[in-house]
Order: sequence, then structure tokens, then C-alpha cells
Amino acid sequence: MDVRIEKDTMGQVEVPADKYWGAQTQRSLMNFKIGGEPMKMPMEVIRAFAVLKKAAALTNAELGVLDQEKAETIKAVCEEISEGKHDDQFPLKVWQTGSGTQSNMNSNEVIANRGHVLKGGSLTDDKKFLHPNDDVNKSQSSNDTFPTAMHIAAYSFLVKETIPKVKKLRDTLDKKAKDFNDVVKIGRTHFMDATPLTLGMEFSGYVSQLDHGLKALENSFDHLSELALGGTAVGTGLNTPKGYADLVAKKIAEITDLPFVSAENKFEALAAHDAMVETSGALRQLAVSLMKIGNDIRMLASGPRSGIGEILIPENEPGSSIMPGKVNPTQCEALTMVCAQVIGLDNACAVGGMNGHFELNVFKPMMIYNVLTSARLIGDACESFNDNCAVGIEPNQEVIKDKLEKSLMLVTALNTHIGYENAAKIAKKAYKEGTTLKEAAVELELLTEEQFDEWVKPEDMVGSLK
Amino acid sequence: MDVRIEKDTMGQVEVPADKYWGAQTQRSLMNFKIGGEPMKMPMEVIRAFAVLKKAAALTNAELGVLDQEKAETIKAVCEEISEGKHDDQFPLKVWQTGSGTQSNMNSNEVIANRGHVLKGGSLTDDKKFLHPNDDVNKSQSSNDTFPTAMHIAAYSFLVKETIPKVKKLRDTLDKKAKDFNDVVKIGRTHFMDATPLTLGMEFSGYVSQLDHGLKALENSFDHLSELALGGTAVGTGLNTPKGYADLVAKKIAEITDLPFVSAENKFEALAAHDAMVETSGALRQLAVSLMKIGNDIRMLASGPRSGIGEILIPENEPGSSIMPGKVNPTQCEALTMVCAQVIGLDNACAVGGMNGHFELNVFKPMMIYNVLTSARLIGDACESFNDNCAVGIEPNQEVIKDKLEKSLMLVTALNTHIGYENAAKIAKKAYKEGTTLKEAAVELELLTEEQFDEWVKPEDMVGSLK
Amino acid sequence: MDVRIEKDTMGQVEVPADKYWGAQTQRSLMNFKIGGEPMKMPMEVIRAFAVLKKAAALTNAELGVLDQEKAETIKAVCEEISEGKHDDQFPLKVWQTGSGTQSNMNSNEVIANRGHVLKGGSLTDDKKFLHPNDDVNKSQSSNDTFPTAMHIAAYSFLVKETIPKVKKLRDTLDKKAKDFNDVVKIGRTHFMDATPLTLGMEFSGYVSQLDHGLKALENSFDHLSELALGGTAVGTGLNTPKGYADLVAKKIAEITDLPFVSAENKFEALAAHDAMVETSGALRQLAVSLMKIGNDIRMLASGPRSGIGEILIPENEPGSSIMPGKVNPTQCEALTMVCAQVIGLDNACAVGGMNGHFELNVFKPMMIYNVLTSARLIGDACESFNDNCAVGIEPNQEVIKDKLEKSLMLVTALNTHIGYENAAKIAKKAYKEGTTLKEAAVELELLTEEQFDEWVKPEDMVGSLK
Amino acid sequence: MDVRIEKDTMGQVEVPADKYWGAQTQRSLMNFKIGGEPMKMPMEVIRAFAVLKKAAALTNAELGVLDQEKAETIKAVCEEISEGKHDDQFPLKVWQTGSGTQSNMNSNEVIANRGHVLKGGSLTDDKKFLHPNDDVNKSQSSNDTFPTAMHIAAYSFLVKETIPKVKKLRDTLDKKAKDFNDVVKIGRTHFMDATPLTLGMEFSGYVSQLDHGLKALENSFDHLSELALGGTAVGTGLNTPKGYADLVAKKIAEITDLPFVSAENKFEALAAHDAMVETSGALRQLAVSLMKIGNDIRMLASGPRSGIGEILIPENEPGSSIMPGKVNPTQCEALTMVCAQVIGLDNACAVGGMNGHFELNVFKPMMIYNVLTSARLIGDACESFNDNCAVGIEPNQEVIKDKLEKSLMLVTALNTHIGYENAAKIAKKAYKEGTTLKEAAVELELLTEEQFDEWVKPEDMVGSLK
Repeated sequence: MDVRIEKDTMGQVEVPADKYWGAQTQRSLMNFKIGGEPMKMPMEVIRAFAVLKKAAALTNAELGVLDQEKAETIKAVCEEISEGKHDDQFPLKVWQTGSGTQSNMNSNEVIANRGHVLKGGSLTDDKKFLHPNDDVNKSQSSNDTFPTAMHIAAYSFLVKETIPKVKKLRDTLDKKAKDFNDVVKIGRTHFMDATPLTLGMEFSGYVSQLDHGLKALENSFDHLSELALGGTAVGTGLNTPKGYADLVAKKIAEITDLPFVSAENKFEALAAHDAMVETSGALRQLAVSLMKIGNDIRMLASGPRSGIGEILIPENEPGSSIMPGKVNPTQCEALTMVCAQVIGLDNACAVGGMNGHFELNVFKPMMIYNVLTSARLIGDACESFNDNCAVGIEPNQEVIKDKLEKSLMLVTALNTHIGYENAAKIAKKAYKEGTTLKEAAVELELLTEEQFDEWVKPEDMVGSLK
Repeated sequence: MDVRIEKDTMGQVEVPADKYWGAQTQRSLMNFKIGGEPMKMPMEVIRAFAVLKKAAALTNAELGVLDQEKAETIKAVCEEISEGKHDDQFPLKVWQTGSGTQSNMNSNEVIANRGHVLKGGSLTDDKKFLHPNDDVNKSQSSNDTFPTAMHIAAYSFLVKETIPKVKKLRDTLDKKAKDFNDVVKIGRTHFMDATPLTLGMEFSGYVSQLDHGLKALENSFDHLSELALGGTAVGTGLNTPKGYADLVAKKIAEITDLPFVSAENKFEALAAHDAMVETSGALRQLAVSLMKIGNDIRMLASGPRSGIGEILIPENEPGSSIMPGKVNPTQCEALTMVCAQVIGLDNACAVGGMNGHFELNVFKPMMIYNVLTSARLIGDACESFNDNCAVGIEPNQEVIKDKLEKSLMLVTALNTHIGYENAAKIAKKAYKEGTTLKEAAVELELLTEEQFDEWVKPEDMVGSLK
Repeated sequence: MDVRIEKDTMGQVEVPADKYWGAQTQRSLMNFKIGGEPMKMPMEVIRAFAVLKKAAALTNAELGVLDQEKAETIKAVCEEISEGKHDDQFPLKVWQTGSGTQSNMNSNEVIANRGHVLKGGSLTDDKKFLHPNDDVNKSQSSNDTFPTAMHIAAYSFLVKETIPKVKKLRDTLDKKAKDFNDVVKIGRTHFMDATPLTLGMEFSGYVSQLDHGLKALENSFDHLSELALGGTAVGTGLNTPKGYADLVAKKIAEITDLPFVSAENKFEALAAHDAMVETSGALRQLAVSLMKIGNDIRMLASGPRSGIGEILIPENEPGSSIMPGKVNPTQCEALTMVCAQVIGLDNACAVGGMNGHFELNVFKPMMIYNVLTSARLIGDACESFNDNCAVGIEPNQEVIKDKLEKSLMLVTALNTHIGYENAAKIAKKAYKEGTTLKEAAVELELLTEEQFDEWVKPEDMVGSLK
Repeated sequence: MDVRIEKDTMGQVEVPADKYWGAQTQRSLMNFKIGGEPMKMPMEVIRAFAVLKKAAALTNAELGVLDQEKAETIKAVCEEISEGKHDDQFPLKVWQTGSGTQSNMNSNEVIANRGHVLKGGSLTDDKKFLHPNDDVNKSQSSNDTFPTAMHIAAYSFLVKETIPKVKKLRDTLDKKAKDFNDVVKIGRTHFMDATPLTLGMEFSGYVSQLDHGLKALENSFDHLSELALGGTAVGTGLNTPKGYADLVAKKIAEITDLPFVSAENKFEALAAHDAMVETSGALRQLAVSLMKIGNDIRMLASGPRSGIGEILIPENEPGSSIMPGKVNPTQCEALTMVCAQVIGLDNACAVGGMNGHFELNVFKPMMIYNVLTSARLIGDACESFNDNCAVGIEPNQEVIKDKLEKSLMLVTALNTHIGYENAAKIAKKAYKEGTTLKEAAVELELLTEEQFDEWVKPEDMVGSLK
């Protein structure tokens, strides 16, 4: 492999000749061989760095501490990065320094070197047009840039990917709730037969869960909108020009079209990542909801002959390598596995969040990795479940009718007429003797056949959706 | 023990003669011997039942489905319960049926029997003035009363106990932040010496964490304010009079002086407890914040001679049974143990939340028990930490000054004058040779003694709190 | 309240006149008002302290560093404590100093004062026969006594309470597995109809889970058997006579009849509680197993008419306050709630375990509280589930037969005769047209009626239990 | 893209012409777009499938149910897969069907198609030499192959990768413990100055933690060694020849050189994954231990001037993008982030483990993914920490000596001479007045200067390592 020599304050390092990164990125590659290929710093964080480095350069120029030409060059490289032109220049792992310093320096190095090339220079030139620390990192520290990138990456991803995909499923379930509004079926509490409701009502509960989950997620955005940038090393803003923090936040808000603001308290913004814990907690809530939904759907669809079987779900693939003709609720399974994963990643996030010391929390890369992973998993799983399962759910009218009619819990309608204790006698007798409620009721002489028919009408027992 | 015979739809049971509870409470006592004495249904839930049973009775009377005299009697008993007159009548455990049916029936039985006695009857009368199911439980089901009690209990406790106690600590820390605003000290990132800030700034970060945590907790109140009551068995509102759900919520709001409303979707309100998961998650966030704060305080106070030692905390008790004169950060320890516990209970809450089936989640008692326990622990621990530690925190000025002056990271102030790389040379030389930064700087001929004195002033490096 | 004055190295404190505890216990009561009554230091820990204080006194005497008469007095008081005569003398909370120093001192104070009284003295005497630190705590520190008490309490409780109760359930399930060995029923994978097995086989899986869980729990005992005692303040054994550590462990092993040994490495034994994490993890594994078992039982028993309904479980109480005649799987619910709780407490335990610093982990009281709580909950819940549910489980033969006969997955028996793809055609046709497999098979001309009857025999498809 | 048509029991699908996979793999690719590229089924699972498919083919041939030539062909392909020749033929995600059926079919399809090509056929031939279900999957089901692959993959990886890397760190720490055995230093309990020990003793505690953790991990291998293969669809072994289960396990043991056996109870082996929960719990225990170790090292190395500073760790990279000359404990940070992640993944594993239903747990791919990820992370992080940090740790003798000498807790040595209370007076006086212990002792006239020098010798207070 062709190499060139790069140096930092610790000395010289060999770097692949065709890479823009410099000494510190290379050191990280050498020192942190943990977790294999898959666990790289998420590209969303790299892109967020491009946003903030551009905003910082423009702000520095506007406030007179950075040469305009340098700022323009930095801006140009950042836009290339945003367009995905340099994805292979960011090889670092999640498992690096806990401040993300190495990924900050990876950005600084790539921008400085690529900028130098853009200005006609060569990577082997001794003196470069841009210095990674003095120019690209001007008015910044890893300690405020990395948390800023965390917030930009998470907020953007949630708004652009996660929420639309969850809403897609929510809307499908809502349509089903309306479509199934007249399908009266047996209810189940304690997994036992209970009084009736409509299938639409059952589905409306899922919609309500997702609505509340989305609201909880959005509630966490206020905290996410606060940017650490301007705090530099410990939160005091050392080495930043006056007005910098607010202006750079404003520029980031413009670039991303999201309501970012400068964090009122920069000390918290570096030393703690409660905003990540908060967002992770909201994603966990969605996972808890989706676990219920996925379980219900799989159980409602169970059978085909010896289960609950009240709904039919799409048959997407042969279900068994040994049992011919078997079809399984595979989308429910992928969805609920994702939910378990999100619940686990959330726990990791909390462990990271609680472990900050003094002016810095050094579990940053792990925390943003998990929040982004959860955000992606929740979104993708909702979309997959929607497209390959939810849209095709249909009631199995025959089964629903059959199970409803033989339900003993229709007896509840009699409470207001003959009292709980007498109603209980009817249900118990019918159960014991394997008869219908009506037969038991009449035999017990607690009411007439006509009264039974008038009082016990499943369709009258379900009320209506608001 | 004197007993009397009580009966329910399953037959007869012996009940202690002096207890108001009936057959179903007694059955639960016999069938669920799990966890010993300490794990009883929290009294907050019992009191919440008193609120909702009173509201239901008044609503039933107002809507013409319950005799006015019966409603008044129920109201009277509920008020006795609220005043703590019958605490010994609620012996049931958390570990019972997952719908809390047995605690609902415990309330119904005690109210019915006590009401009968209030009306001049005797517990051994065959016919009672009130029937536990047909009167006290009218227009209700365990499935909607228990979640309603969960929301009333949690919301009330958080507002009345948890939040004021967290705020008390928050205010003390805020006062300290202001008091310590001029105490310039060394910062620490990665647990390593960093650029300076003031002790007040460090404390302001804690205040900001608690402010965000309290906001997150309050964000969860919207969901908590939704009451299941009116859904009855499966969410359809079977056996409730028209207008019942909204009216009973209004009455509960009046009694509790909290903004309760009828849940828009009753199916969710019975089948899922995402509101509990949400609130638990917010308490978890506070625990994560308090873990950071407790750890920081214990580390800042470490010593007395060989630690960080920058603050002094009150000496409350001899710290060691073997090391004479030792004083320990015991309040930090109780606080951080509480935080660990809350993080664990939150995990249990999520496991419960994900496991609802069809129309009912049957992890209700466990979930409310954990939310209330966490709410109590967070509040009590904040108050104890506040009263016995935070209020007495003082800076150890001598140590702070000493550590600040010898810090190598003051070199950062030189970045904007001589560049990052030259500044690094100075720091490395001083570190290696055990000299001061100034000595190293001058020796390297990178700047003069006068320039050093002008450029490196810790008090100019800390900026100011917004 | 009558008080007397007690003092420690910090000064004087008022103590209730009738209590044996002294100044440090009283200070803890005043300084730690967290979590209310229920969260007291578990009595198992108090009793474990009585064991170790007695062993330490006898060892000290034997090694010549404690007066024989003092040792005898300490022994006498410890035995009174073991017999439960002084339970009201240990009022402290879990939420105290993280080393448990205050509970160690509570023991020291009560033993010293009670010993003085036993020797004819009065609590108000200025000079006492025993000194809490110099005599009762001789050759000890909180830092080695509390972890020793943790191990004694956990190991004893698990052996005496938890394991026998889990085994009781295990044996009942094993009996059922044998009783139900001929009950051929439909299997279910993915919650969907699958090939048959016997109900006994299904139950044998539960037995195997519990067997493995018990083994995992027992695997953790080696670590639990290691005692910290003899390490004193930091693990070095300062202020202990030669031979002390091994001798005191031997005495504790004799008193408890458990194979306790002196920890080979005392530094770990004070600074980390991985043994607690390990045991907690094993209890968590049992919780995971029991969650599966509890869920399966509730689902198998679901109905009575519109669920799976293949088994019948005891009816212990009326299940619903609104639905007459409803019976619910309430023991499954208590069991699975307990499992969720244990999983949560285990998470708290891990958080505590990871947070030791240098020579001491200060999350001790929380960790032992949670391990003991989990141990109790698992044991009690198994016993309750056993006595009130498992022993009464019976197959619902009619339902089982009906569901088996209509199963499409019996087609799997044809794979080896006509190949997977042809078998799939039969199953799909029968499902689509609502016919039997035989009808579909014959119609497709893939085999004769006689071949079908010969090849598809559910009872031949189930093999046999090893 | 060139495609060919493949079909399964559901119909036709287009597959890339150059891929060996067939219809079912392609369906999974289309139906499960969750989590992006990084979350593919781990290659360890693919390789484990190659082992078991080979073993199954040979067993089938030996037992006379598979043609010898077919068996040889399957064997040949499996060996190619084991050598990594077909890695690009396994494109499926973790987030698929919860039984891993699609990955089983991916293996079956690739082996059948590649086998056909090896025998001179073409992928577009209508009739193939091997049938994926009838030949490659003979005597198997996804339900028993996937759990078998889970156990093979986990056990092999732990033995070959994780344990050697943890041991490497363990051995380095053990060497340090011995090297530092004479370095007497101040101890710290409650993060406060305590009695002395040696630096070697401190490190010996870490060694003991890892030894216990490794033992706990190895304790879990018994359960891992049990293979589900032979259970087929529901555990009964339907469609397997007599003797198959034991023979195939024997062959797998031979191929892997690991002590695999046929699971005594196949019903558990399919329906539950407590073995995964158990192994995951053991990895969690190692994470808890490593968190303590990583934290201690970072704190001991803190400074360089205003922290604890008792050890020196290697300087691997510039630590700060803004603070020149700063060096950070970055390996500790990567290590502790990994620990947090493992703790989170373990929680996901428990959630999956608890959610099996009837004859099958359908959280399989998620569970093995997390166990393998944790196993890799723990191993890699230990190795990285070892190579880049632990091997280079050296005591900072000057700092250690300075902190030791001024320690007040040396007073503990006086307990046995003048009693705890007098000793406390000395410590308190010295602390208050900022003097040495000796000065305070003499001034209080509690002992002479000579006595002090004789009794208070740090090196005599540390005992010795066993």
C-alpha cells in the first residue's frame, strides 16, 4: 500500500496515500480494533459534522476570526461530504475515545487535506492551505462539536426517517380501525373470553399507542434542539469570538431546517447526555407499544385451525423447512425482535448517560450509535411490518362470528337486569353443562327466552368509537 | 381468631370478624403469599380508589342509575378511607391478579360493609345496604378502575411529593451555583486536567440537568391525566350510563385538583400502560442525572488529603468502624444507590408494559408499585441529599487555588496567539520536566514572560454564566 | 419519648431509652429518611451479622486477642438475635451509607449494649462491659463484615428458601409431564399449528428449563461461598491476628452448615460484588424461564370457549368485578409480574456492581436487598403458583382431540413418502377449501386413502420422551 | 442485473443469476429491509450452519436415509463455505423470521445449488442434483438447526476468540500485580483516603474479578454444549432416523473439537433459549468487572497534576483538538463504552428469552446476534485495552509516596494500641489543624514520638498477597 507521512503533536504516522485523513485518524485505526467492520461511526454523525464544520467556518468568517477564503474552502468540502462524495474517508469505529475526539479530528483532517487539494495543493505538501486544528476546528473543541453532531444527527434522522415510517404504520392501522368498525368480536382480558368489542376498536387502541409514542418522541425534541457548540473544551466557550454560539446555532438551524438553538447551559451539554437518554426513552416507549401490537397481531392471526384465527395476514414466504404449507407471522417476529433490541440499546444508553464525570461525559459515541440504531430499527421495522403485513390484514369473519356467538361473557349484559350474582349463576351453569347461555338462563328461571334475546345483543354491547 | 362467613359466586369463606373486607379479599390473602409483608399494595393506590369510588357513586347518582342514599353512603366511607381511618382494611399484596381485580374488590367489599355498618347494620347481616358489585362497583370494572387508580396515584404523588423534593435540591444547587460563581477552578474532561471554569458553572450544569429532568417528567403528565374510567370490562363502556365517562373524570379532577380527563381511547387505556412506561422513563432520566451529580460531588469532595478535595461536604456521622476519624460521602452513596434502583425498576416497568395481550395488560400492580416506589425514592433521596449534604457544600479554596495554578491546560489560552502545535510543545515540555508553563514557554522562546502573564489568566478563561 | 444520651467520635446523640442501639444507628435514622418503612435492611442481613459477629468473637478469643468472657457475652447476644429476640433493634434502611457501615455499627452497638445489660449493667452506665468498636468489631471493618453478611444471607436464603420452593414446582411439573405423556396434542411454532407432540413433552420442556436454571443458580454458589472477612478496611487484613481469616470462615461454615471459605482475594471481595451480579444473573435466568412457563400455561388455559383451551387450571376466585362467572389465570399473572420485577432488580444489581471505586464498592445494601428480594419473590411465586395452580392442571381432552384432528400440519408425516413440495400442495389445498388433509390428498391423487391412514398417525409422529 | 427464475411452494421469484441462493432467500431480502447493511446474520452463524449441514448429511448417509453421493456433495460445499469461499451468498439480515428459517433455507438453497454446479449442472437446470428441503435439510427443521447453529457459533467464538483475549488482559494485570507488589500506596474506600495497601494488591483484585468472570463464562458452557438437532419441528424428532440425534451431535463435536452433546430435552432446546440468556449473563458479569477496572485505571491515571495520578498509562494519541498536550485514557473509554453496550445487549437477550411461546422461541436471530456481538466486543476491547494501555501501566512512584505519607488513615494502626476513640481524636486534630498525625498524637499526649514511629509504618500495614 502506498503511504505518505503525516504528523501530529505526537510524531509521525504512515497514512494510505490516497486518503485525505491524517495522523490522528490513523492512530485511532491502529489503536482501536474493536467490534469489526459493522460498528463504524454512523454516517449520520459524519454528515452532521459536515453541517457543523460548515456553519462554524461561516460563523468564524462572519465574526472576523477566519479568512474568508478558508471559510469558503471548508464550506465547499463540507458540501461534498454532505453529498456523500467522501464516505470512504471516515473509517473510524464507534469504540474509540469516549469524547469522539478522533471522529472530530477525522473530519478536521479530511476537510483540511481535501481543501488543500481543492486549492490545487498536494497531500504531500509540507505546508497546507488549511490547518485541521487552527482553521477547521477554530472556535471548537471535540467536546462541543461531537455532542452537537449527536443532536443534529439524531434530530434529523428521527424527523426524516423514523417518524414518517412510524406514521405510515399508524395510518394503516387507523384505516383498518375504521374499516373494521362494524366487525363485532369477542373481547379478551387475562387472555380469557370477555365481553365483545369491534375489531376496529381493538385496532384503535394500537393507533392510540402510536400516537402517544410519537408525542413522547416529539416531547424529547426540545432537549435535542439544544446545541453544545460554543462551549468548546469545558463549556466556558474559551477561544470563541463574541456572539459565536448563537450565530453558529442559527446557521445550523438554517442548513438543517430544524429549530436548533444554542444550549442555554453548555456545562450540561458537554458533561451529560440526558437529551440522548430522553430520546432513547421515547424510542423505548414506542418499542414497548410495538411489542404489544406485534404480539396481538400474531396471536389474532394464529391458527390456521387451532388458534385464535380472527384475522388473516399476508402469506409472504413458506414458513417452514419441514412442515409443508405452513405460513408464519414473520413480520411480527422481525418487529418484536427489533423491539427487544431497542429496549436493550436503551439500557446501554442509560448506563452511558449516568457515567459522566465532571465536565465531560465520555460515552458519547456509544450513546449516539445506539440512539441512531434504535431510530433506524424502529422506523424500518414499522415500514416493513406495514408494507408486508399490516396493509393486508383482513378479518376472518366466519371465525369471529363463531367465537362471538358461543361466548359466555355475553352474560355481562344481564348484570343491570338481574344482578351480578344471578348472572354468574347462568354463566357457570352454561360452562359446566356445555350449553348456551340462553338455555341455562331459562332453565334457572331467571328470565324468559324473549328477555334474553332482547337483552343480550352483542352488537348493542360494544358502544361506539368516539 | 373470631371469624364470620362471607360468600361470593364461588362459595363461602371465613373472614376475621373485625374486618370489613369480604370473600374475595380473603381469597386473595390465601392464594397469594408472595414477597412477605413489605410488598403490599401501596396506600396511594388504596386512596386513589377511594377518590374514584366516590366520584363514580356521585356520577351514578347524578345520572340516575344509583340511589342517592347509597351514593351518599359510599361517599362517606370513601372520605373515611381518604382520611386514613381504614388503612388496616387493605391487606393485599402487589403480587396478585395482574388486573388488580382483587384490590378493586377489596375496596368494593370494605366500602359496602363499612357503609352497611354506618347505616346501622351489622357485618353478619345476611342482606346488606350496599352490594359490592352492583352498587359500589356500578358502571365500573376492575379493568377500568385499577388503571384509573394507577393514574390518580402516580400523578398525585409526583406533584405532591416527588417534584417539590427534587425542586428543593435543584434550588439549593442553583444557590450554590450563584454563590460559587467567582470560584475559578480547574476543569476536568476525560477525568484529566482541562481548561478552567468556575465552581458555580460546574454546579449550574447540575441545575440544568434537573430542570430538564423535571420538564421531561412534566411532559409525561398529559398521558397520565387520561383516565380509563368509563371503559369498564374491555373499553367499550358496557353497563355505563350515557355521559358517565366524561362526568366521572370531571369529578375526579375536582376532588384531586389535577387536570384529569377521560381517555380519548379507552382500549389503549386498559390494554397498555405506556403512560406508566413514559413516566417511569422520565423518572429514570432523573436517576441518570442524579447519578452524575452524586458521583461528581463525591469525587469533588474526595480526600481529605489524597483525592480531588475541591469541596467540603458536611460530616454527618463517623465513617468507618475501623478507621478512626474517617468521614464519607454517605449521602452521595444513598442517592446513587437509589438511582441504580430506579433504573432497575424502570426496566421492570418496561417488561410489564410490553406484555399486554388483547384487551388487557395484566402487569398493572407491578407497574404502579414500581412507578410509585421510584417516585418516592427519587423524592426522598433528593430531600435527604439536600438537607444532609447539598446545603452544606463549601469550596475548599486553598485546594482549588493550588490545583488551578499548577494546571498545564492553561496553555490552551495560547492557541489563538501561537497556534495549537506550539502550545502543545510548551505543555509537553513543562509536563516532562516538571516545570511551570511559563518557564517552559520562555525556554522554548515562543513568547516572553510578559506575554505569558498577559495571555494566560485563568479568570479570563472562564467566560461567564448566561 | 424517654431518651438517653449516647456518644460517638462526633459527639452526643439522644437515643430512645428502651433501645439497645447507640449513637451511630441513631444518626443514620436521622440522616436517611428515604423510601419509607418497607425498605428496611432485610432481616436476613441482620441475622447474618449475628452469625459473623459470633464467629469473629470466638475466633478473636481463640487467637488470644479478645477476653474469653467478652467473647462469650457477644456469642450469647448473637444467639438471641438469631432467635429473633431483638428484631425491633434494627431499624435502619437500605438507603444508607453504601458500605453498610451503619448496619454494621447497629449490630456492634446492639450487641455491646445488650451484652452490658446481660452482664448486669445498665444502658446509662458510662463505662460498658463491651465496646462496640474495640470489642464487638474487633478484627473487623464494615468493609469486610458487610460483604460477608451479604454472602451469608444470600447463600442461606437461596438454599433454605428459594431452591426448595422452585424444586417443589419443578417436581409438580415433572409429575404432570409423566401423567400427560400419552396426551397427544397439536404442537405450535410461531404461535401457528405445527406437528403434534404430547402434553407431557410440552411440560417436560418446563422441567428442563427449571433444572438448568437451578444448575445455573448452584453454579454461582462457589463465588458466594467466598467470604471477605479478614480483609478489614481495604483487604489487607490490617488489625487482624494471624490465621484469623481462615479460622473465622471455618466457624461461619460450621454455624451455617454451608461450605463457606475465606476469599482467596480479599481486594476483590470488598471492591467488587461480582458474586452478587452472578447470583442475580442466575435468578434472572429463572425469571426468564418462569415467564415462558407462566405465559404458556395462561395461553394453554385460555378460553373457556374462544381460546386455546387445551388445559384446565384451578378456579381460585371470581375473576371479574363486572363479568359474572369469569375465571382468570391469576397465578400466572402473579408469577409473570414477579419475573418482570426480578429482571428489573437484576438490572439495578448490575448497575451497582459496575460502580465500585478503588478498594470499595459502595452499592452494597442495594445489591443485597435486591438479591434477597429476587430470591424471595422467585421462591414464593413458585410455591404460590405450584400450590394454587400447577398441582391442579388437567388436560381438556376433548378440546385437545378436536384441535389435533383438524390440524393441517399432520401433512409433515408425508414428507418422507411424497416429498416436501407435494405435501405442501395437499396442505394448501385443504386449507384453501376447508377440507381434511385426506380429502385433499386423495383428490390430488398423490396417495390413496389407505396410504394416508397408514402414514398419518398423530400418535406415531410424537416419538417418545427419553 | 441478470436474473434467473427460482420457485418455491409459493411460486416464482427472480434471483440474481450469479447467486446460488434460491426463492426463499430472495423473498426474505424483499420482505425484510430493516436495519441497513451492518445488521446481517453474523458469519459465525453461517459457518455454524456449514458445520451442522455437513454433519447432518454424513449422519443421514450413515443411517441409510441419504444417498452417499449426495452426502459427499453436501460435505464438499459445506467445506467450501467453512473456508470462506461463499461469504457473499448469505445476504440475509438479523431481522427476519424469528426462527431463523430464512437463514436455514439460505443455507439449504446455496448448498443445493452449489452442489448441483459442483456435479456439473447449471443453475438454470429444471431438475437439480440436490433438493434444498428433501436432501440438504433432511432430518432437520429450521427449528432445530437454527438453535444448533446458535450454540455452535457462540461456543466456538467464545472459546477461540473471547476467552483468549480476556485471558491476555488477565495475564498482563497479573504480571502488573506481581511487579507492583512492593509499591505501598494509600487505599481508598468511599473514594476517601483509607489505610494503605500495595499497588500490586489493587491490581490483584482485578485479576480475581476476571478469573471469576471467566469461570462464570465457562460454567455456562454445559448448557451451550447441548444441541437441539434431532428435535426437528417441535422437539419430537419427527422424520429423523433412529439414532440420528446422538450421532449428529457426535459428528459436530468431532468437526468442532468441542464437547457438544445432543440436548437431553429437545422441547426446551427449541422453545427456550435460556442457554443464551445464561451465556449472555456471564458476558454481562465480565462487562461489570471490566467497567470497574476501566474506571479504576482512568481514575488512578487522572491528572497529570490535579487528579489522583498514581499510575502512568501510555500516551497513544493527542487527546484534545483544542487543549494542546492533553493526553486522555482513551482505551479506558472504549472499554467502558463496550461494557455499557454489553449490559444493554444482555437486557435485549433477556427480553427475547422470556418471550417464547409453546414449542418455539422466535427471537432466535436477535439473541445470537447479541451474544456474538457481546462476545466479540468483550474480547476485542480486552485486547485493545491490553495492547494499548495495560501493558504500559507504570506506577508514578513520587505521587504515590507523597499521597501515602500525608494520609491521615495511617492512624488506624493505633487502634490496637490506644483504642478507636483516641485514634479518632488524633486524626481529627491533624485534619483540622493541617498537621501530621505524629504532631497531633504527641500534642494530645496519647503516645510518644518513638511509639508513633514504631507503630505507624505503612509498609507493615499492608500484609501480603496470599
